[in-house]
Amino acid sequence: MDFSEVIRKRRMVRHFTSEPVDPAAIERILDLARRAPSAGYTQGQSFVVVTEPQTRREIARICGEDEYIADGFDPFISQPPVIVVPCVSETAYHRRYQEPDKLDEAGNETEWPVPYWFMDVGCSVMGLLLAVVNEGLAAGFAGAPTSERMAELRRLLGIPDEVTPVGVVPIGHGAQDKPSPSLKRRRKPEADLIHRERW
Amino acid sequence: MDFSEVIRKRRMVRHFTSEPVDPAAIERILDLARRAPSAGYTQGQSFVVVTEPQTRREIARICGEDEYIADGFDPFISQPPVIVVPCVSETAYHRRYQEPDKLDEAGNETEWPVPYWFMDVGCSVMGLLLAVVNEGLAAGFAGAPTSERMAELRRLLGIPDEVTPVGVVPIGHGAQDKPSPSLKRRRKPEADLIHRERW
Repeated sequence: MDFSEVIRKRRMVRHFTSEPVDPAAIERILDLARRAPSAGYTQGQSFVVVTEPQTRREIARICGEDEYIADGFDPFISQPPVIVVPCVSETAYHRRYQEPDKLDEAGNETEWPVPYWFMDVGCSVMGLLLAVVNEGLAAGFAGAPTSERMAELRRLLGIPDEVTPVGVVPIGHGAQDKPSPSLKRRRKPEADLIHRERW
Repeated sequence: MDFSEVIRKRRMVRHFTSEPVDPAAIERILDLARRAPSAGYTQGQSFVVVTEPQTRREIARICGEDEYIADGFDPFISQPPVIVVPCVSETAYHRRYQEPDKLDEAGNETEWPVPYWFMDVGCSVMGLLLAVVNEGLAAGFAGAPTSERMAELRRLLGIPDEVTPVGVVPIGHGAQDKPSPSLKRRRKPEADLIHRERW
C-alpha cells in the first residue's frame, strides 16, 4: 500500500471480528516492524506474539478488558486472533553505553536526559501499527493499568525482569467501531503541533 | 512510495549535501508525521521546524556536532537545510488523565507503569523518519548529550519548561555515509527480537 495511505488509514481500533488472520500476513508484519531505530543500535526492543486463546484471554483480563466492557466497549483485547506485546530492555541500553566506544573521556556512561528506550519502543510500536494497516488489518493498544498488573503480564509470558512490556497490541480484522470518548477532543490545530523556527 | 519499501530504506544518516530541500516536501512530511497515536488522544507531541542557518548552527553546537566531527563524522546536524525538533509534554498527559472520563473510581489519576509520553513521541519520530524517506530524502538523529544542553536547546527555541525536546532530526539530501561504529554490532537474529507465544 502507498505509504501516505497507510499513515492516513491508521486508527486505534477497539472492535474486531474473530475471523482468522493469515499467518503469512503476521510474519510479513513482524518482518517490517522489527526494522526500527535504536540508540547505539542497542536493539533493545522485542515482541512477544501470542495466538493461543487461553493466553489471550489471560492477557485481556490483566489489561482490564472487563473494565472496558463495563464502559460499553467490545472485548477488543481477547477477540482478535493475535496479540503482539512490544517490550524494551532499559538494561540493554546501559550495557551498550558501557562499551568502550560509548564511554565519555572520563570513562563514564553517558547521562540520559531522555529515556531513549521508551522512545525507541515507540518507534517499534508505530512500525507495527503501520505494518498492520499495510496488510489491510486493524490494531488497537492497551496498557497494563498498574505496575502490579504489568508484573502479572511479565510472569504470564515469562518475560525477564529486566524487560518491560509496554502494552499489548491486538491485531485482527476490524469491525464497526464504537468511537473512543477521547475523540471528542478532536484533532489539535496545526499551529499547536508544528512550530516554525521557534516555539 | 510503497510502505514496505519505505520501511526497508530507512537508515539513520550522518552525511548530507547542502542542496536545498523543496519546502513543499517538508510540508508533506509534517502533514504525515503529525498523524501519530497518543494515550487518551492527549496529542502532547509537537515539532519545531528550523531552517534558519544561524539557529541550525547553534542547535548543532548544543547537540555536540564538534565531538562528532572529532570522531570523524561529517557535520551532519548543521549541514542539511532543515532540522525538526520533536517534543513532548508530560504535563499534557497528566492534565488529560485528570479529566473526568479518565479518573478511576476513587477520583484519582491513573498510575503510569510506562511513561507513555516518551513512547508516543517515539511514534511521532518514526512517522517523521519514514515520511522523510517517502519523499526520497534522508534523516538522522542526535540527542542533547546532557540535561544542561537540553535546557540550552529549550531556551534557544523558546520551548516552554513543561515541554521536553527529545532530540533533533536533521533532514536533507543524503550523501555517501561513513558507517556508524554501532553497525559493527549487526542486526540481532530474529529469535532475539521475536518470541512466539511466550518469551
